[in-house]
Amino acid sequence: MSSSFQSIILKLQDFWASHGCLITQPYYTQVGAGTMNPATFLRVLGPEPWNVAYVEPSVRPDDGRYGENPNRFQLHTQYQVILKPDPGNPQELYLESLNALGIDPRQHDIRFVEDNWEQPAISAWGLGWEVWLDGQEITQFTYFQQMGGVALDPVSVEITYGLERILIALNNAKAIWNEPWGSIQGRESATVVTYGEIRRQEEFEHSKYYFEAADVERVRAMYDLFSAEAEACLAGGLIVPAHDYVLKCSHSFNILDTRGAISVAERQAFFRRIRELAKGVAVAYGEQRKGLEYPLLKNAEVRMKNAESKPSFNSAFSNLHSSFVLEIGVEELPASDVDSAHAHLTTRIPTLLDELHLAHGDVRIFTTPRRLTVYVENLSPSQPDRENLVKGPPADKAFDKDGKPTQAALGFAKKNNLDPATLEAREIDGGKYVAAVVKQKGRPTPEVLVDALPKLVESIKFEKSMRWNDSGVSFSRPIRWYVALLGEVVIPFAYAGVASGDISRGLRPYGSPDIAIPSADKYFDLIRAAGILLDKEERKASIVEQVKQAASLIGGEAIMDENLLNEVTNLIELPTAVMGGFDKEYLSLPRDVLISVMKKHQRYFPVASPSPVIGRGARGEGALLPHFIAIRNGDDLHMDIVREGNEHVLGARFADADFFVREDVKLKLEEYRPKLAGLTFHTKLGSMFDKSERMLKLSEDLAPLLKLTEHETRNTHRAVYLAKADLVTQMVTEMTSLQGVIGGEYALRSGEAPEVAKAIAEQYQTVPQTKDGLVVALADRLDSLVGLFAAGLAPTGAKDPFGLRRAAIGVVQPLIEHNVDFDLAKAVKESAKTQPIAVSDEAQKQILDFVTGRLNVVLKDAGYKYDVVDAVLAEQSNNPAGSLRAVKQLQAWVERKDWHEILPAFARCVRIIRSPSVTSDQLLVIGRVFMTEPEEMDLFDAVLSLQPEYKDVDEFLNAIVELVPLINIFFDKVLVMAEDKIVRNNRLALVGQIASLSYGIADLGKLEGF
Amino acid sequence: MSSSFQSIILKLQDFWASHGCLITQPYYTQVGAGTMNPATFLRVLGPEPWNVAYVEPSVRPDDGRYGENPNRFQLHTQYQVILKPDPGNPQELYLESLNALGIDPRQHDIRFVEDNWEQPAISAWGLGWEVWLDGQEITQFTYFQQMGGVALDPVSVEITYGLERILIALNNAKAIWNEPWGSIQGRESATVVTYGEIRRQEEFEHSKYYFEAADVERVRAMYDLFSAEAEACLAGGLIVPAHDYVLKCSHSFNILDTRGAISVAERQAFFRRIRELAKGVAVAYGEQRKGLEYPLLKNAEVRMKNAESKPSFNSAFSNLHSSFVLEIGVEELPASDVDSAHAHLTTRIPTLLDELHLAHGDVRIFTTPRRLTVYVENLSPSQPDRENLVKGPPADKAFDKDGKPTQAALGFAKKNNLDPATLEAREIDGGKYVAAVVKQKGRPTPEVLVDALPKLVESIKFEKSMRWNDSGVSFSRPIRWYVALLGEVVIPFAYAGVASGDISRGLRPYGSPDIAIPSADKYFDLIRAAGILLDKEERKASIVEQVKQAASLIGGEAIMDENLLNEVTNLIELPTAVMGGFDKEYLSLPRDVLISVMKKHQRYFPVASPSPVIGRGARGEGALLPHFIAIRNGDDLHMDIVREGNEHVLGARFADADFFVREDVKLKLEEYRPKLAGLTFHTKLGSMFDKSERMLKLSEDLAPLLKLTEHETRNTHRAVYLAKADLVTQMVTEMTSLQGVIGGEYALRSGEAPEVAKAIAEQYQTVPQTKDGLVVALADRLDSLVGLFAAGLAPTGAKDPFGLRRAAIGVVQPLIEHNVDFDLAKAVKESAKTQPIAVSDEAQKQILDFVTGRLNVVLKDAGYKYDVVDAVLAEQSNNPAGSLRAVKQLQAWVERKDWHEILPAFARCVRIIRSPSVTSDQLLVIGRVFMTEPEEMDLFDAVLSLQPEYKDVDEFLNAIVELVPLINIFFDKVLVMAEDKIVRNNRLALVGQIASLSYGIADLGKLEGF
Repeated sequence: MSSSFQSIILKLQDFWASHGCLITQPYYTQVGAGTMNPATFLRVLGPEPWNVAYVEPSVRPDDGRYGENPNRFQLHTQYQVILKPDPGNPQELYLESLNALGIDPRQHDIRFVEDNWEQPAISAWGLGWEVWLDGQEITQFTYFQQMGGVALDPVSVEITYGLERILIALNNAKAIWNEPWGSIQGRESATVVTYGEIRRQEEFEHSKYYFEAADVERVRAMYDLFSAEAEACLAGGLIVPAHDYVLKCSHSFNILDTRGAISVAERQAFFRRIRELAKGVAVAYGEQRKGLEYPLLKNAEVRMKNAESKPSFNSAFSNLHSSFVLEIGVEELPASDVDSAHAHLTTRIPTLLDELHLAHGDVRIFTTPRRLTVYVENLSPSQPDRENLVKGPPADKAFDKDGKPTQAALGFAKKNNLDPATLEAREIDGGKYVAAVVKQKGRPTPEVLVDALPKLVESIKFEKSMRWNDSGVSFSRPIRWYVALLGEVVIPFAYAGVASGDISRGLRPYGSPDIAIPSADKYFDLIRAAGILLDKEERKASIVEQVKQAASLIGGEAIMDENLLNEVTNLIELPTAVMGGFDKEYLSLPRDVLISVMKKHQRYFPVASPSPVIGRGARGEGALLPHFIAIRNGDDLHMDIVREGNEHVLGARFADADFFVREDVKLKLEEYRPKLAGLTFHTKLGSMFDKSERMLKLSEDLAPLLKLTEHETRNTHRAVYLAKADLVTQMVTEMTSLQGVIGGEYALRSGEAPEVAKAIAEQYQTVPQTKDGLVVALADRLDSLVGLFAAGLAPTGAKDPFGLRRAAIGVVQPLIEHNVDFDLAKAVKESAKTQPIAVSDEAQKQILDFVTGRLNVVLKDAGYKYDVVDAVLAEQSNNPAGSLRAVKQLQAWVERKDWHEILPAFARCVRIIRSPSVTSDQLLVIGRVFMTEPEEMDLFDAVLSLQPEYKDVDEFLNAIVELVPLINIFFDKVLVMAEDKIVRNNRLALVGQIASLSYGIADLGKLEGF
Repeated sequence: MSSSFQSIILKLQDFWASHGCLITQPYYTQVGAGTMNPATFLRVLGPEPWNVAYVEPSVRPDDGRYGENPNRFQLHTQYQVILKPDPGNPQELYLESLNALGIDPRQHDIRFVEDNWEQPAISAWGLGWEVWLDGQEITQFTYFQQMGGVALDPVSVEITYGLERILIALNNAKAIWNEPWGSIQGRESATVVTYGEIRRQEEFEHSKYYFEAADVERVRAMYDLFSAEAEACLAGGLIVPAHDYVLKCSHSFNILDTRGAISVAERQAFFRRIRELAKGVAVAYGEQRKGLEYPLLKNAEVRMKNAESKPSFNSAFSNLHSSFVLEIGVEELPASDVDSAHAHLTTRIPTLLDELHLAHGDVRIFTTPRRLTVYVENLSPSQPDRENLVKGPPADKAFDKDGKPTQAALGFAKKNNLDPATLEAREIDGGKYVAAVVKQKGRPTPEVLVDALPKLVESIKFEKSMRWNDSGVSFSRPIRWYVALLGEVVIPFAYAGVASGDISRGLRPYGSPDIAIPSADKYFDLIRAAGILLDKEERKASIVEQVKQAASLIGGEAIMDENLLNEVTNLIELPTAVMGGFDKEYLSLPRDVLISVMKKHQRYFPVASPSPVIGRGARGEGALLPHFIAIRNGDDLHMDIVREGNEHVLGARFADADFFVREDVKLKLEEYRPKLAGLTFHTKLGSMFDKSERMLKLSEDLAPLLKLTEHETRNTHRAVYLAKADLVTQMVTEMTSLQGVIGGEYALRSGEAPEVAKAIAEQYQTVPQTKDGLVVALADRLDSLVGLFAAGLAPTGAKDPFGLRRAAIGVVQPLIEHNVDFDLAKAVKESAKTQPIAVSDEAQKQILDFVTGRLNVVLKDAGYKYDVVDAVLAEQSNNPAGSLRAVKQLQAWVERKDWHEILPAFARCVRIIRSPSVTSDQLLVIGRVFMTEPEEMDLFDAVLSLQPEYKDVDEFLNAIVELVPLINIFFDKVLVMAEDKIVRNNRLALVGQIASLSYGIADLGKLEGF
């Protein structure tokens, strides 16, 4: 019996109505999501309670697929639930609602996958999850933290169901179109009406409208009218009318964007305007409600105080050493937070126990997405008694001239409960003070922990954290329980509105059943009995084993990316591998697309044929197989359902990619290039087409700098010509991370030379493998650096919106790794000539300094001594490859045993001419006729025999080594700063000659010991 | 336990989902009604089945009341149901749905009140009802006949619930604001959230936006963009996107209209554009579905053939005379159709029985809103045997010269089964023909009726009729059953998809239970036993009796308008009077407002104090009492609920009126006058302000024509000045029928003289009571006639969009009744001078002819002979009052016994000079010197003694009477057309002199017998 679309809605309405939600209606103007309905956007603001549920047909023009894609539409139907404040169990309520729809968690793989929701257009954000049902995202679950720029208190829980996806999942369907919406009862029989019958033609028409037909000028004019009207409404205090027009702005912006009519620069202006309006609406609404004295707050129950009263002990303390366990139960943490909490606790716990003076055995830390566990063996039942030396007033202030204690001393004695007569001065910290030895009775461990545990929990910090209840505490995700047991004793504390106890919770797919923990030492057994693999390494090993086994079943090998493996390990508590397949025909999609979809979007392990040996033990890439391996959170019941679900999702994603690729390859890559004119690079710097033209010009100048062959020049010219064309293909628009890769793929399919394709494909890699790729990358990055610096957009502080730091690294790193000599200054100058705006000499210097700064970092990060790097870069930063060679050589010299003899000698030469009294005109001429001493003549002879220039550090320093004895004798015997001016200048010029040998090689003055 | 808004919605969703409807969502752009949602607007087109139900928050800007009115809002919530095709029992389904909401028909007064739905803006119409719950309209129920200009086949049933009103009714609330929408469950308790909390602030803001803040230029620009985009979409075959923009056009038009920014002339242009677009959408959608081969039709069941196979007799015929009853059961007919059907059947049945050769006793016809009953006593069991004379070929063609029958005769004989030898010629219709006497065997009555009854039903025609099922039959409202019994025998027939039987149905409030009728003679008893008063006179008497009794209970008298009484009688089958009250404070509203609301809107009888005697037996108006009497359809159970419901409705209506009046009287009437500039009268003729200025000018010219005193002139000037000002008040905008009346009321409240107020108040009455009122009316109507004729907008055929026929009658009738002499031609000429466009002489003549035409009708309708009227109007149509006097006199003359002597004598004079050979120059001079005969001299002497001119018909004809003998002798003895030209001309001139006495009085040539 298949479900119908309308029955899902009716069931959800009933469910949420009976769980204390108001039921309201979709909004009467196009919105991109239920969030924009005032029942959410406005009502989540301010302190009043608000529970609401409603359907929201949501219009997103650029998701239109002409009704061809079975899963993606310009209009999809959300079911939106807002719970404000957090009822304490929103995930459980949500899972119950799925149950009401017939989705039994035991039969599926339901996952809460990290999702940091952010909508800059309305200045809103929150943390939560995508909820996955067998790999399909069916719901977004968010704890709203901010809306319209206003911080939310209380936080609202937003649950947004994707109804189409739920219908597909419930009916295990391939596509939505033939699934029932409902049925029409005729006089004699009922007719099922499909979702497609109701929506598909409309979907086609609207896709066509949004992508092809909408009149850009008219829609732009609408936008202007809407925004002007929104502003006027806001000025007049008409909040909801203003909001309506903000929504209309937003929709018309979306149309324009879908029509490809919005340049990057314009986008910011559009967003800014919408954001300002949305903020205005939010602020005005907040004030309005305040003015009304928050009617819903007045009527509502007094908000329940969270459990802040301190719980008390439930049994007597033991006097024996016992195990201690603390389990912090949380809603699903992001994978990286599972790791960071682990790292923190691993460091913190031993220190903490020391600070608490608690003796203990082994400390073990485990983290999973749902629990952070601290286990301490043999924890002492109490602190030891301790003596503390307490420092009092200085001795001279403690006793008067008669040796009697002063008031200060008496006070100190009283405070520390001492007999004043026993006070005496002691040497402390190098001074004399009166001091007291204070005895401190060791406290029982439970009492110590009661104080310490809340602080411990508080000490766990995350990159991003959120509030959820009126405790105001921030954490990665809400804390829902604590187990805190010392032996059999519950350590009673409360933090973040949650009180500790002895009840843990089980696996999500089992409904998170309560698990009573009678004592700490039973903890591990009970958790394991509940099916939970607490130990990350154990989970990981299990995954690796299962994945390998699964892949080998079909004679393949899983592509096991370590990052992915780590992430997946942190997403589950009980891993079970599920292998699924996909339609072979999708193998014709670009390999990177397939892998990217499987790994990034779905967290699947792709499977390939065993990688072939391609010679000398190296191995190539095995061909992808039409299979994937997913890791389910849970056991192996109903695996077929889980597999089919995941297969469906992947198939749908591939279908979407396939749609794009099929559309894209209707044109040759070359034919996309002119369309770059519609894509703004930057207002001052023109379109991407303009940039592409500049790159072409610049690459011609780079060719000689890079000493390209004629063949290479031809290839790179073509590659640069085509490099950016893929940016306007649908596939790249959809999956931006595949830019370049797709270009390369399409280049091949368009009949371009493999070298050209390769160069295009790898242009965004930090270090392209081929020299052709290097040229494309350099042309791109140099152009960005020069243009954007000239436009005044150099990075400032932490801000680097155009990724120029990355670009600079992308200039120096490949030059280094390819070991290609280069003249950055010349390249910058050439690029400057191609820019549509003036690039001043100062700007060029600024650019080169900026690049040098990156090069400096790169070299230091590579392990070279900072002073060595600085010394080299002070003289030859414009050629990164050369810099590296110089750094390597110089570092070797610096590490030589005789370096302490070489450097000082050379330094003497340099230092004397750098002294403030020496001017450069003193260094001009050297002549034997002015020499008076043999030592200076010897040195002069030696200098005369030097080469006029040295090509590297080694040559230069080898020469210096020869001079060291002569230099030392010279300085020892000859007074450089002689009375006679001519003699003096002649001597200065002589050492200056030596000092100048380092020019262009390294400024040894930067070295330690100089 | 009060109902909540959301529970009503959820119950309706469940009800209609379980009754075979698709459940869909409100539309994502502002609509004025659920009808505009494509789920209705598009899906009712074409042959495919479609059942759907959805909520539709509907936006009607001009209904905004700033949240002050408890029942009227710019946004109200519809629940829309479409049943296509008609399931056969939509009213019953609907009543079931009310039951599901907790509305038991036995506890309420549920009424189906005629409603002819029409939306010219989208070229759509249908027939049906407003459904009233205790006087409150809670639903519109319509059989759609046309949508977007396309005739619908099948017809769709549209049920539109007004959810706010239902909530109010269910909770017996005064206003919506404090009624529960639903509730929010907190951790410990639930908080009820009111409708007002969710909507009131928004209602205020949107009201303010629509009435005050919307920027007219911007919204106008939006409209233009939307309509351009709609057109482009349509041209590109993008139907739903086009429809979306049509809706946006419509909404922006509504905003402009609410802002008062649309002139009358513009309105047409706006409407036309929207209508054309809507039609385009409808036509394109029809074609699209056809192109798709109607997918829903293919999948649907084969459409059920309605019962068209002829039923057969269910028992043997009786040979005795029996009673016959035919009951046509219908859904509630409009009141006027109840009467027209009665009239038709009363005439038709006896004739029909004669035509059918069926002897019968008394015929009785009864009609109620639910049944049309024909009862025939003692109907003969069969036709008598009959002889017919059948006319054959003419005698001369029937027999050859030998007297033998020709082929023609033989054929005739054969056809009529006669022996050719018996053929003989007879005199028929004044010629000679062969003829045959054909014997016809009388058929049994049941058989005769089987054929006759469908035709009888078909013969019942209505002013407006509709289709509802695939029989294609049109009727006032759907036919749902027939009882057709001859004695105990069911006369089996089928018509309009319904088969006859012996089951009637009972009262609507009892659920229309089946009533088995075993035989015709039991019909009346059973119907009465079911509580139905079949006889209109009985119902009416019952109403009168009950109303009087009720009124007397509170010492008042009901205001019983005959039309209202008649209408109410035709709205119910079992009348029960319910008296209710309203807040006394509303008595301060204008009396006409109160009465108009009670009578027109609610069909209540108002109650007043007994009318005071004001002298000489005349009685004045009693003051209104705060009570009303409604007539319920049903018995007297749960009268309290019914009364309270009705009281609520009336209170709400009065509150609305009160809102307007309070708003309006913030300004003096005079202050509204300048705002008339914003109200277009006609594009070519300017604004209502311009018209008002013209009226003022014209009234100055009319003053002398009407011989006004100085005092009268002053008053009329003021009255004309203020006359139109009320058109821009809110009260008149709301209840246009009260124009003038409200102006008078506001004039008084603004301190104007009572005469002025009275004149303003009665300006729209066909015949104002006061002369001041007459002046206002004349100025208004003459201006309209002259201006609009000049603008080329004279009525053509049945079309009279500006009501010029009424205007013309409104010119002549009051002049007649006030018996004021007037010069229409002069008045028209004066008015012409004030018009902004040229009024040619020809146009002026055309206007006068048109007015004369109306005057002609008025006089004839007053009972005067057509020829008398024609005679008078031929000579003095420009003075209606004078015309009437002349007509009266002339009619008296015409009725004199000696008229046949008077007229011919005068006629001889007239006829001879009107003969074609006589030219006017022959009539110029009369001189005794040219006379030869004494008779002409005698006549001449008599003529010389006449007055030069007679002031009226009597004087003129008294003079003629004197001349009659002389005229007769003259013509007998004297040859007028003498040989001698001079003599001839002289004689012609003499009789011409007599003929000319009628000039300016009457053209006796128009009289019969002339």
